[in-house]
Amino acid sequence: MNLLVGRSVLFSKELLQLADGITTMRIRGAAEIGRAAVDGLAIYARSSTTGDPDAYMEGFGEAYRLLLNTRPTAVSLANALMYVRHRVSRLHRAGQGADSLREMTVKASEDFNRSSLEAVKRISDFGAKRIRNGDLIMTHCNSSVAISILTEAKRQGKDFRVIANETRPRFQGRLTAKALAAAGIPVTLIVDSAARYFMPKVDKVVVGSDVVTSNGAVVNKIGTAQIALAAKEARVRVYVGAETYKFSPSTVLGELVEIEERPPEEVVPREELGGLSGVRIANPAFDVTPAELIDAIITERGIIPPQAAILVLMEEYGWSIGEESPGKTVIEEE
Amino acid sequence: MNLLVGRSVLFSKELLQLADGITTMRIRGAAEIGRAAVDGLAIYARSSTTGDPDAYMEGFGEAYRLLLNTRPTAVSLANALMYVRHRVSRLHRAGQGADSLREMTVKASEDFNRSSLEAVKRISDFGAKRIRNGDLIMTHCNSSVAISILTEAKRQGKDFRVIANETRPRFQGRLTAKALAAAGIPVTLIVDSAARYFMPKVDKVVVGSDVVTSNGAVVNKIGTAQIALAAKEARVRVYVGAETYKFSPSTVLGELVEIEERPPEEVVPREELGGLSGVRIANPAFDVTPAELIDAIITERGIIPPQAAILVLMEEYGWSIGEESPGKTVIEEE
Amino acid sequence: MNLLVGRSVLFSKELLQLADGITTMRIRGAAEIGRAAVDGLAIYARSSTTGDPDAYMEGFGEAYRLLLNTRPTAVSLANALMYVRHRVSRLHRAGQGADSLREMTVKASEDFNRSSLEAVKRISDFGAKRIRNGDLIMTHCNSSVAISILTEAKRQGKDFRVIANETRPRFQGRLTAKALAAAGIPVTLIVDSAARYFMPKVDKVVVGSDVVTSNGAVVNKIGTAQIALAAKEARVRVYVGAETYKFSPSTVLGELVEIEERPPEEVVPREELGGLSGVRIANPAFDVTPAELIDAIITERGIIPPQAAILVLMEEYGWSIGEESPGKTVIEEE
Amino acid sequence: MNLLVGRSVLFSKELLQLADGITTMRIRGAAEIGRAAVDGLAIYARSSTTGDPDAYMEGFGEAYRLLLNTRPTAVSLANALMYVRHRVSRLHRAGQGADSLREMTVKASEDFNRSSLEAVKRISDFGAKRIRNGDLIMTHCNSSVAISILTEAKRQGKDFRVIANETRPRFQGRLTAKALAAAGIPVTLIVDSAARYFMPKVDKVVVGSDVVTSNGAVVNKIGTAQIALAAKEARVRVYVGAETYKFSPSTVLGELVEIEERPPEEVVPREELGGLSGVRIANPAFDVTPAELIDAIITERGIIPPQAAILVLMEEYGWSIGEESPGKTVIEEE
Amino acid sequence: MNLLVGRSVLFSKELLQLADGITTMRIRGAAEIGRAAVDGLAIYARSSTTGDPDAYMEGFGEAYRLLLNTRPTAVSLANALMYVRHRVSRLHRAGQGADSLREMTVKASEDFNRSSLEAVKRISDFGAKRIRNGDLIMTHCNSSVAISILTEAKRQGKDFRVIANETRPRFQGRLTAKALAAAGIPVTLIVDSAARYFMPKVDKVVVGSDVVTSNGAVVNKIGTAQIALAAKEARVRVYVGAETYKFSPSTVLGELVEIEERPPEEVVPREELGGLSGVRIANPAFDVTPAELIDAIITERGIIPPQAAILVLMEEYGWSIGEESPGKTVIEEE
Amino acid sequence: MNLLVGRSVLFSKELLQLADGITTMRIRGAAEIGRAAVDGLAIYARSSTTGDPDAYMEGFGEAYRLLLNTRPTAVSLANALMYVRHRVSRLHRAGQGADSLREMTVKASEDFNRSSLEAVKRISDFGAKRIRNGDLIMTHCNSSVAISILTEAKRQGKDFRVIANETRPRFQGRLTAKALAAAGIPVTLIVDSAARYFMPKVDKVVVGSDVVTSNGAVVNKIGTAQIALAAKEARVRVYVGAETYKFSPSTVLGELVEIEERPPEEVVPREELGGLSGVRIANPAFDVTPAELIDAIITERGIIPPQAAILVLMEEYGWSIGEESPGKTVIEEE
Repeated sequence: MNLLVGRSVLFSKELLQLADGITTMRIRGAAEIGRAAVDGLAIYARSSTTGDPDAYMEGFGEAYRLLLNTRPTAVSLANALMYVRHRVSRLHRAGQGADSLREMTVKASEDFNRSSLEAVKRISDFGAKRIRNGDLIMTHCNSSVAISILTEAKRQGKDFRVIANETRPRFQGRLTAKALAAAGIPVTLIVDSAARYFMPKVDKVVVGSDVVTSNGAVVNKIGTAQIALAAKEARVRVYVGAETYKFSPSTVLGELVEIEERPPEEVVPREELGGLSGVRIANPAFDVTPAELIDAIITERGIIPPQAAILVLMEEYGWSIGEESPGKTVIEEE
Repeated sequence: MNLLVGRSVLFSKELLQLADGITTMRIRGAAEIGRAAVDGLAIYARSSTTGDPDAYMEGFGEAYRLLLNTRPTAVSLANALMYVRHRVSRLHRAGQGADSLREMTVKASEDFNRSSLEAVKRISDFGAKRIRNGDLIMTHCNSSVAISILTEAKRQGKDFRVIANETRPRFQGRLTAKALAAAGIPVTLIVDSAARYFMPKVDKVVVGSDVVTSNGAVVNKIGTAQIALAAKEARVRVYVGAETYKFSPSTVLGELVEIEERPPEEVVPREELGGLSGVRIANPAFDVTPAELIDAIITERGIIPPQAAILVLMEEYGWSIGEESPGKTVIEEE
Repeated sequence: MNLLVGRSVLFSKELLQLADGITTMRIRGAAEIGRAAVDGLAIYARSSTTGDPDAYMEGFGEAYRLLLNTRPTAVSLANALMYVRHRVSRLHRAGQGADSLREMTVKASEDFNRSSLEAVKRISDFGAKRIRNGDLIMTHCNSSVAISILTEAKRQGKDFRVIANETRPRFQGRLTAKALAAAGIPVTLIVDSAARYFMPKVDKVVVGSDVVTSNGAVVNKIGTAQIALAAKEARVRVYVGAETYKFSPSTVLGELVEIEERPPEEVVPREELGGLSGVRIANPAFDVTPAELIDAIITERGIIPPQAAILVLMEEYGWSIGEESPGKTVIEEE
Repeated sequence: MNLLVGRSVLFSKELLQLADGITTMRIRGAAEIGRAAVDGLAIYARSSTTGDPDAYMEGFGEAYRLLLNTRPTAVSLANALMYVRHRVSRLHRAGQGADSLREMTVKASEDFNRSSLEAVKRISDFGAKRIRNGDLIMTHCNSSVAISILTEAKRQGKDFRVIANETRPRFQGRLTAKALAAAGIPVTLIVDSAARYFMPKVDKVVVGSDVVTSNGAVVNKIGTAQIALAAKEARVRVYVGAETYKFSPSTVLGELVEIEERPPEEVVPREELGGLSGVRIANPAFDVTPAELIDAIITERGIIPPQAAILVLMEEYGWSIGEESPGKTVIEEE
Repeated sequence: MNLLVGRSVLFSKELLQLADGITTMRIRGAAEIGRAAVDGLAIYARSSTTGDPDAYMEGFGEAYRLLLNTRPTAVSLANALMYVRHRVSRLHRAGQGADSLREMTVKASEDFNRSSLEAVKRISDFGAKRIRNGDLIMTHCNSSVAISILTEAKRQGKDFRVIANETRPRFQGRLTAKALAAAGIPVTLIVDSAARYFMPKVDKVVVGSDVVTSNGAVVNKIGTAQIALAAKEARVRVYVGAETYKFSPSTVLGELVEIEERPPEEVVPREELGGLSGVRIANPAFDVTPAELIDAIITERGIIPPQAAILVLMEEYGWSIGEESPGKTVIEEE
Repeated sequence: MNLLVGRSVLFSKELLQLADGITTMRIRGAAEIGRAAVDGLAIYARSSTTGDPDAYMEGFGEAYRLLLNTRPTAVSLANALMYVRHRVSRLHRAGQGADSLREMTVKASEDFNRSSLEAVKRISDFGAKRIRNGDLIMTHCNSSVAISILTEAKRQGKDFRVIANETRPRFQGRLTAKALAAAGIPVTLIVDSAARYFMPKVDKVVVGSDVVTSNGAVVNKIGTAQIALAAKEARVRVYVGAETYKFSPSTVLGELVEIEERPPEEVVPREELGGLSGVRIANPAFDVTPAELIDAIITERGIIPPQAAILVLMEEYGWSIGEESPGKTVIEEE
């Protein structure tokens, strides 16, 4: 993709380098990508000198699309860009001048960055309040948000234990177990299919998420939905930690979240694959937990029921998101 | 254990060797153990010469206990012995003579052996009738009965596909996938926690079992219950293949089936365990699927609802099983 | 089919005429067919003169197969024949002579006939006791057993109301409504899809059945399962009336009950079908209500939970039913 | 009703004719009625000449009530009027002058009209994204929104099949089947009570709606709730298409949606009614599907969980709807 | 009732006194009544001197009815009498002589007595095996069987805690708490409506029962069903202790168990009733827990699923129970 | 607590007296406390004379904290204060002057008071519309809102009956029964554990609430959750009446609602406690009904699904509530 071909403006070298960094995955991780994207819009704002608000918005739109195209299916990138555009467009529609739009671009970019940096901290604070002495918590995969909630609760002196599912095929649960043990939390590692066996003794399930959809479903590491189901069966509450930039505006418009299919070598070591000729291996990386299996989503804006995900999306991006859809979301491992 | 110390009789060398073979696990496998045990009773019958029915029964009882003690927690062994005793005791109570008891001992032993050998074949015939063209079947672990049902259906020319769960921690699902592929059945291997992801497209779940309890619960490889739960959620029927000697009379008397806890090295390779210091690993080998998650148990006696397990137990062993309980059942990998 | 070709005996003209009557549907209706079949066996018994029990059984077997082949998929016919055979075979195995077998053939035939004739009366007596003053009962299709329960309750002076579903596509519910109204029972006719709308006010659902399977499922007129589901959702009890000859021994052996697909003209009048070119019409005549949606089956032997259907089958036909399966059951409108 | 009796103004002839058109059902159909109503308010605005904002609002209120009374129980009419009033009142409270109020009346009226015209198109776009190749979709009744979603998906080249329920008593499903077949979509017509029979093979249910209530329940053609229940039982997702003017503000204030009872002749042909003397016929035209049986509502504003219906109502009409309730909603066939 | 009026025999004074003792409630308690009733039949047997089996049976029948009429609605009394009659009638039908029938009457009476006396002991043994160290058990009302299970487990050295519901209106839970505390078991008393609050920490529910019906429902103290429901919701297993003479043969024949309505003074003290004029008080003493909310029934014959209650009834009383129904069961406090 | 120690201002005597009234429980009841608190803020506003908006806000903040500390765990008090602060802060952030802030403080205080006074009336109006002729309503405890809904429906001439649960341990249900009977409503009093027994005949459950959490759970008198569960099982709708100041902003931030544990003497009279030595008594005053067991919450702002509780919280207090959390909520009897 030739990033230099804008229709009406020539972008600054700084902006083009930043965009290139996202494209080439030099900049990676959901949170990092989002923050880089809004930095890109702020770079545009600072380099723009026009006094005509319409001209400003035209350039803004091109920068927006330049950045969106760096990884068009990453929900955090699209969300970061829309967060700023929503606020700038509102001023533009209200008839504000170019300076005002420029200021808002920079301010909204900074707000997003601050909010993103604070989000995990706030989610940990909110989530930690839900952990009680004596609790047995189950977690799945290796979610930074879930680990952060648990270590924050530990830091506050709470006494609880954790069951970490190993999370096939890539055994991220071992990393989680290691991290929790390092924080002084008693942790037990089990195979994923033993989750229901231990569920009657579990008090809460705490997991992270990759995408939250407009009807309150949570897309997360394969296995999450099965654990939520076993939790529901045993009246165990399920909490999902999710920064608001994980909420997908595209799903408001009907886009399905496409689940990445990963290579068979993750499931069967390459050296054994030969012995399994004729056997197909399916390896979906994520699954979808429906709203009815989730008790609450812990965001940096507060704790909400999954059915209120749409409220977060409206607050952050406005009903106007329909006008210019960021397109399809594809969930991939990072 | 000194097998020679019977109270009133000296057992034949043949019988003692057979008992030793079970104790030392030279004879192993649920079916093999059961058949060897009743062979032991037939050896006693053939070597007994008494004309006094009470004396015959006294010796019978000692042989029974000798054999029961070789692996007192194996359900198939206890069941095989009770199968014969139930029939011999009935004649004894009816006032039959020693010859008659001897004959019945040999006959019942032979009947049990024949029935055991035919059981898998009959279960396959019954189960295969439930497979339809176009079906997608899910199976778990590496059950000889489940595989036999599926290959029999294939042999009859039915056209269906199978999803085999890999079955952590020991990956027995790979063996299953290999066996099914070898039989020409299209098979897909998945990680256990992807079962719910694929469930809406599944038509039936077919699994084996290690123990069936008196209230219709099925003890089987860890993960089975979770899959049955996901099947129930999606209105997918769950069929369990189980020879009647898998039905546990002890559970009629309140005995809980004890679940074997297996070594942590099965979950995390020994070389990685060092890196997980402070992490406990729990590795239960089996779980319990309650009756309400099972649609039917396919036995060699016919297809029954799980709640009728007690009927099979009564038919096979009579209400008198309470009189002399075979003791606790412990389920172990073999 | 040439009914005259028996292997070793020449059947009486009387027996051949009776068999022909079933084949040509001169004799029809589940109950009538069953009674005619056992009459056939009694005709054989009376015409047999052999003193050799084995020869008697050989002829018996041929008569059995002759009659079974008249409508090999009708569950009542197969059941009636097995009822007699079960009792005669037991005597034969116990070493009884030919006279004894002859007598048992006639007696079992008469017993079956008496039992069949009394069955509906007994079911009505049992079922009527469950109706209380003030009840609102829902029924589906036009089941003689269900109607009989309701009219018996009315005859006893009970004061209750009935909702009759119209039962598309053939509107049998109108016949039911007419019959109940004629018996002085206040009855309301509704479309089938309004069943859930009225369910919160319903006290009990009472329906008949065409086949009861070994794992307690009930095959009945299309729509029954949907109504049972709506009843379950609203904690309304579901009672199924079923003579024991509706219980299918074939299903013990894994046979699936095949659901008849009926002509499209029942769904769309022939004159309108032309206007629906390109539209396929599916018209399954029955559906399967799983055991968990049924509270009790009312048989002439007593009121049982659906999971005890296998107990009825064992009592009536013995575990030996496996030896000589009557084959596949196909459910058809009569 | 004498439409001429306003308290303080004399309405234009144009407005009175329009109101008469709604009253006499010359103007009919939920969407058409709504658009005519706001046209009426725009007529008032254009004919008003006062410079006093309070006087303007007084006349506005009278026009509002005039129009509301033309069909006081039609939810789309009340909603259309409230949509405009909400926006005009806001300006009035903010102290804007009469010209400003006039402009807003016209603009809001035009906005509503545009939005209404675009709604079905947008819903089709959003909904079509949810259809996947290979899907089997079930639909009920003859919903223009549901058909539009399906034909849009077909237009995009997607390959899927549809099951159309015939929808007793008026067989609207035949129209649906005809329309889908005409669009080249393979479609199968079934009786309503066969829905559960086919459900395990269904991937999604797509239906329209007549009213959406404040707690997320959907009022739609009789039978919808039963199908949603069968879908839930089989983990099949249920999507409801609903323009936002189907959302009932009255229900926020506790009004129950009254279900129309339609004539018995729809259920039993007049010529057969005589034969059913003593039989009552109940014929409710709609039923209520609770929020927990619905996965998402597809509106022109985006895809939301049913529990967010209240959010749509607040966004469109504001919390102030309580101040002047539009009164009772009665759902009627049109 | 004049007990002296037998049709053909004059009963012994001993028998008449015993019958009178039951009628006047000098003999009371489910178990005591049952044992007294069969003692009555044994008294008849011992006093009978006829050599004609038919004459013996005629007298037997009159004694049977005499005793049944002492408390015709007590299930244990009817069951005890049927237990003996079932065995005696079988011999009579098999052509045995009067002496043989006399002997069987005495033997069956003694068997019943022994079995009744041993039943609670055996149930306690079976049930105690299900209690594990660390368990938290919930119980309701003041059931001797439930208490016996718990104290037996304690006697075996098991370490567990109990929650006793107070059991309004008569606070029998206080007696239970006292008895358990006296046995050294840590016990917590709660109000009945706090059961769901504590359920997530509960491991098992253990209760007794008053009647078990033919379709596996359990009639027990009011509140039991609600607790079983809360247990089901939280995947907590529910065990019911029930001697087999609690199983009601009448329910096989369709009899409903009538629930006793007890006086309002139990709910509101007499002195406060005046202040509640205009308030009706309903005080049903029992409720019905359906089979699907119960995991197992612990009988002296073994542990069975509730759906196998019919099997116990058949084993104990035979299919012939229909011939001479003991009539209606009414459950009353004793 | 020394209320006089403000950091920068000296509060008026009037304000200090009011604060003292709340602290000493002279002012009590959720509604009364809330109204007193905002009166306190209005007193501050009227006594403030500064022209500097920042200085005004500083004093405002101190008054706020003074009042919050009078009963820091009462949700209505915190909510009332936040209601005013939210509106004043918004103006302050918008750069308004001190006079404007003063005016808003008084106006918001008056608005809150009016709204609070009108809330129960409005809830009654909304709720009463849901009551239909012929309904049987169940209620629990002695909720002024629930009683108000029922008596309003009666006042409108509706004909319905009520079941009042006695509500152990403090028998508040007797007060409810008395109040309803006084209003001419036929009412039946039952023990709490009979709720499921009567549920199949119940049409609706109507209860009040103490706290509504951000994920839609309702904290109410112990037993409420159990009744809601029994209602769900029987498809009976559950309505909760709740003024919006019952919605807890703290829960948005993760605070758990702490359930008050009340003295054992409420469960067992002091004079009987001695006889229960060794028995612990647990007496939680409230329980938590999850959103999925509630159909709608009736607030003075309208009828919403429980999952929209967060919407009410956002509307009333804004997303900014996170900035200055009111702290923990403890629910206590008043």
